[in-house]
Amino acid sequence: MTLKFALLGVGRIGKVHARAIFSNPDAELAVVADAFPEAARAIAAEYGCAVSEIDAIAADPLIDAVVICTPTNTHADLIEKFAHAGKAIFCEKPIDLSVERVKTCLETVKQTGAKLMIGFNRRFDPHFLGVKKVIDDGGIGDVEMVQIVSRDPGAPSPAYIRVSGGIFRDMTIHDFDMARFLLGEEPVSVFATGSVLVDPEIGRLGDYDSASIILMTATGRHASISNSRRATYGYDQRIEVHGSKGSVSAQNEHLLRIEVANGNGYTRPPLHDFFMTRYIAAYAAEIAAFVEVVRADAVASPDGADGLRALELAEAALRSAQTGAPVAV
Amino acid sequence: MTLKFALLGVGRIGKVHARAIFSNPDAELAVVADAFPEAARAIAAEYGCAVSEIDAIAADPLIDAVVICTPTNTHADLIEKFAHAGKAIFCEKPIDLSVERVKTCLETVKQTGAKLMIGFNRRFDPHFLGVKKVIDDGGIGDVEMVQIVSRDPGAPSPAYIRVSGGIFRDMTIHDFDMARFLLGEEPVSVFATGSVLVDPEIGRLGDYDSASIILMTATGRHASISNSRRATYGYDQRIEVHGSKGSVSAQNEHLLRIEVANGNGYTRPPLHDFFMTRYIAAYAAEIAAFVEVVRADAVASPDGADGLRALELAEAALRSAQTGAPVAV
Amino acid sequence: MTLKFALLGVGRIGKVHARAIFSNPDAELAVVADAFPEAARAIAAEYGCAVSEIDAIAADPLIDAVVICTPTNTHADLIEKFAHAGKAIFCEKPIDLSVERVKTCLETVKQTGAKLMIGFNRRFDPHFLGVKKVIDDGGIGDVEMVQIVSRDPGAPSPAYIRVSGGIFRDMTIHDFDMARFLLGEEPVSVFATGSVLVDPEIGRLGDYDSASIILMTATGRHASISNSRRATYGYDQRIEVHGSKGSVSAQNEHLLRIEVANGNGYTRPPLHDFFMTRYIAAYAAEIAAFVEVVRADAVASPDGADGLRALELAEAALRSAQTGAPVAV
Amino acid sequence: MTLKFALLGVGRIGKVHARAIFSNPDAELAVVADAFPEAARAIAAEYGCAVSEIDAIAADPLIDAVVICTPTNTHADLIEKFAHAGKAIFCEKPIDLSVERVKTCLETVKQTGAKLMIGFNRRFDPHFLGVKKVIDDGGIGDVEMVQIVSRDPGAPSPAYIRVSGGIFRDMTIHDFDMARFLLGEEPVSVFATGSVLVDPEIGRLGDYDSASIILMTATGRHASISNSRRATYGYDQRIEVHGSKGSVSAQNEHLLRIEVANGNGYTRPPLHDFFMTRYIAAYAAEIAAFVEVVRADAVASPDGADGLRALELAEAALRSAQTGAPVAV
Repeated sequence: MTLKFALLGVGRIGKVHARAIFSNPDAELAVVADAFPEAARAIAAEYGCAVSEIDAIAADPLIDAVVICTPTNTHADLIEKFAHAGKAIFCEKPIDLSVERVKTCLETVKQTGAKLMIGFNRRFDPHFLGVKKVIDDGGIGDVEMVQIVSRDPGAPSPAYIRVSGGIFRDMTIHDFDMARFLLGEEPVSVFATGSVLVDPEIGRLGDYDSASIILMTATGRHASISNSRRATYGYDQRIEVHGSKGSVSAQNEHLLRIEVANGNGYTRPPLHDFFMTRYIAAYAAEIAAFVEVVRADAVASPDGADGLRALELAEAALRSAQTGAPVAV
Repeated sequence: MTLKFALLGVGRIGKVHARAIFSNPDAELAVVADAFPEAARAIAAEYGCAVSEIDAIAADPLIDAVVICTPTNTHADLIEKFAHAGKAIFCEKPIDLSVERVKTCLETVKQTGAKLMIGFNRRFDPHFLGVKKVIDDGGIGDVEMVQIVSRDPGAPSPAYIRVSGGIFRDMTIHDFDMARFLLGEEPVSVFATGSVLVDPEIGRLGDYDSASIILMTATGRHASISNSRRATYGYDQRIEVHGSKGSVSAQNEHLLRIEVANGNGYTRPPLHDFFMTRYIAAYAAEIAAFVEVVRADAVASPDGADGLRALELAEAALRSAQTGAPVAV
Repeated sequence: MTLKFALLGVGRIGKVHARAIFSNPDAELAVVADAFPEAARAIAAEYGCAVSEIDAIAADPLIDAVVICTPTNTHADLIEKFAHAGKAIFCEKPIDLSVERVKTCLETVKQTGAKLMIGFNRRFDPHFLGVKKVIDDGGIGDVEMVQIVSRDPGAPSPAYIRVSGGIFRDMTIHDFDMARFLLGEEPVSVFATGSVLVDPEIGRLGDYDSASIILMTATGRHASISNSRRATYGYDQRIEVHGSKGSVSAQNEHLLRIEVANGNGYTRPPLHDFFMTRYIAAYAAEIAAFVEVVRADAVASPDGADGLRALELAEAALRSAQTGAPVAV
Repeated sequence: MTLKFALLGVGRIGKVHARAIFSNPDAELAVVADAFPEAARAIAAEYGCAVSEIDAIAADPLIDAVVICTPTNTHADLIEKFAHAGKAIFCEKPIDLSVERVKTCLETVKQTGAKLMIGFNRRFDPHFLGVKKVIDDGGIGDVEMVQIVSRDPGAPSPAYIRVSGGIFRDMTIHDFDMARFLLGEEPVSVFATGSVLVDPEIGRLGDYDSASIILMTATGRHASISNSRRATYGYDQRIEVHGSKGSVSAQNEHLLRIEVANGNGYTRPPLHDFFMTRYIAAYAAEIAAFVEVVRADAVASPDGADGLRALELAEAALRSAQTGAPVAV
């Protein structure tokens, strides 16, 4: 049976999810809501669905699931509202910028028994999943060192930086989740160093735009993360895992799989502009996984605890960068 | 306004088109038909559409367009029927195995003024399109030599071979169309050589399973095509164009963009199993282009004349392989 | 014991061999000769060896071996002279432009029992050798189709074209040898088509600058060769062999193994300028193999018969291009 | 004029230098010495040179330069001896395991005015040099983040570990030099973490076999280094530099530039076994650069100060790994 979805928030990431829900034969994009009604109406027109509001959606018995793509500071409240309303919930990361608020929110989720899945989309990227499968199948033996390169094509606006929670909670949080996903052990220590190399305004706002991070686990495995808010060649997203029996990596996706050769050399196109196109397949797989969760055929993963753990690593990284010393977690 | 589509034939390629139509917000998969009703019902259940029959669909005033994925020997008749019924028509290649039948069919299309687009899906592959754009933008100067490698993962069944029209009309026809698309000039001569290296049964049926072809244009441009009915590493689809100022190529797509390194070396996954997954983006773009045609915003391309021309090259290649001499076209 | 070498001709290819001999601890570059004495003296100064003349070298009992890098029209005479003088002979390709002259020359070699090795350097390229080894080890099953791309960076001067014997005898001859090396069967038929796309002057001299060739063996294996006298991106040298169990290829070598990424994409450097740098390792291995031949530890390979066979294929290709029909060999 | 070289020590790295000197037309390998006379005699026989002893070489007025490839604990003494003897000196890294001893040694070099070049061979790798040139030409704008992956194919013997000075002084020292070479600024702080993941015996000897390091400069540039004593796929040597206008990287070199495709995927050969083959071109260029230094046409680079600086970074890294805190340098 086709499940009825409500989409809350139709900004950049909301549009990505609208498309993923629409293209999934097991899901129906029934209704959208947004603080800007015209934005909601535009999406509704494109996909032939209704426009409504938060409370009405929560009260609508026909709605099976909600996908929360609103601003971060509304996430925890919305999760609690829809948990009480008995809907299955998919929420974009982070649950909140405050570890404490996340914990109370997850307590509510637990008490209501609501299903909650968190939007760490990269876990569903087929290539990263392929890396994970090689590891799980023993293809590289024991994991020893994880390397993640994650660079945005360009720095966000100061307005965005201000509400973002900083680079570690906003951007590196995906890499912390990926490191946990691949290491096979929980990090116990974080060393982070941050610089302002891209945009001095980011520094004036108290944030960093370039960061190098090392995570360590109890048995001595390492994960290295390299972040920058600027990559002139596109959205740089690579992982590599070195193990006792070999290594496995996932390469970047170029805009096209073509190459032009001339006197200047051999040139391939740059990478994707950003996550909206780079991770299309991942978002589709993520929604498909959530459909399985809603149908009760699967346990939500990543779940609220994963969201919390990544946020804790982000907080530790921030403290490390500010103090210059590693932070235990 | 969303267009209502009828899909005729839900075999291997029909299923691909069903998905492409379903995922296109401007198209609605309204009805499907198939000689095997259960097959039609299964697709209808998956996408939530109706099941009907050819005549009813032709008579249904709500249907805007038909997508013909039935066996080849029905294509010309169906095109004529739906041309008379005033529907926009998308038909899989080839229109017919006989050049004469194709010509009478296209005459009907012309007289009825019907819109007809032919399914040379590779023209819509974003990577091959990227190659074409580089050429059109002058990126490699004048085109001089086109090289196409096109190998199927495995040989089809004898039953398929029997009705296929032979390797040149069934398989190379796509490469002939691609060569025309890239050369920028019509071939005037074809030299083809065919062998039976994969499956002796194919030879017994009077067909080849391995072929090398050279096309020549009036100004001396060449296109080389290499075909095999077997490639253990997957569906091998590459093009390369050499020009006066440079060269441009489109590489194969691997199942995943990962690489495993160990004592045996560095291994990337094999290629796609076949066209159904290799050309997902191409089929989606093809349907999107057809939507534009139906809306009368665009001229059908590739059209019936393109289908005819590719078939004529296939016939010339067959004669060349059989006689051992080049054939003028 | 170190072998004493004489080098005849210190032009472009002679310089390459001088370096290869000098760097081989088992060979000593004892003496050089050239029609231009200053050229000989410059090389002698660089490598600390003597300058002499043909007849004196032939008469010198201390000289073990000669490496012939003089113009093509002197090759056969020099081979005969040094065969009679009892020296081991390495001669650059081709032995002569005339099949008849080659045959009489090889007769003399046979009668004198001289050791003769022909300079098909590509057989010694470690990468092409690696391809051959994969084939010989059964790594791709039975060879079915060989593809060779061989493009020079730029067209030679009209003066060179005039004495070159034409593209098939001058340039494709290397590809014919490589095709024989890889096919594992002798070609029985050649189809060639030539065009003038690069330089009209080449056409006025009766030659081609662009060619596509198909070789066929008795059991139906094919080899395709694509030649151009111009490649803006460098010296393009690729081979690929498709077999019943898999495929193996050797990729081009770029000037450096680096890549620059920016808003224009990802750019690797162009290829080598030409054979002098592209095939350094091949030339070194070729001389090392010849050292083994001189020491009587190995049979010369490729030998005079290989030189003859490649020339016969070149002549057949020329006739095919001129008549428009395949030519049996 | 050809320079006369003495080679001290003909172990693994000594053999590499013997070959590089022999193949350089401007240098003559005149004499070799080794604590094991048979080893010296074998090399002398291969290259046709004399065998002698340290003191005799120091006293020989015909010797222009010495190349020191003896065990680390003899380096400083030998440098001082040959500095006093007025020879040009090339010495393998490290000068000594003790920063203090290096300083006194360099003082002697300074007082004698001797020419001293240190064997950081990677600076001469053409690919890494290509990366440096892209940076120096402004191709990536301002350097922001350097990433170095450096993994040995297998762990050395306990006997070697014992005298090696530990992973940071023995292995990472090359990476510290490369980081300095590429950062364009001196590191002011080092954070290192080391683990024992490869061989517990290494841990029992108080050393690490896996390490992740972050260097920071005063303006906020970072360098990340990832080391392991084991890589099943060969000697892993990669660098990547991210800048304000782009990025540049140098990829690994595989044993051959071939690829085999079959049902298991596309497989390229593993990497080089180790530095002796991976860096052949680098060692040749290094000797060529040293020849220029000896001829007084060039200033020695890298010199003793570079050797000292890399060792100081190694000591800081060791302290950081042992204390868990970053160390200022």
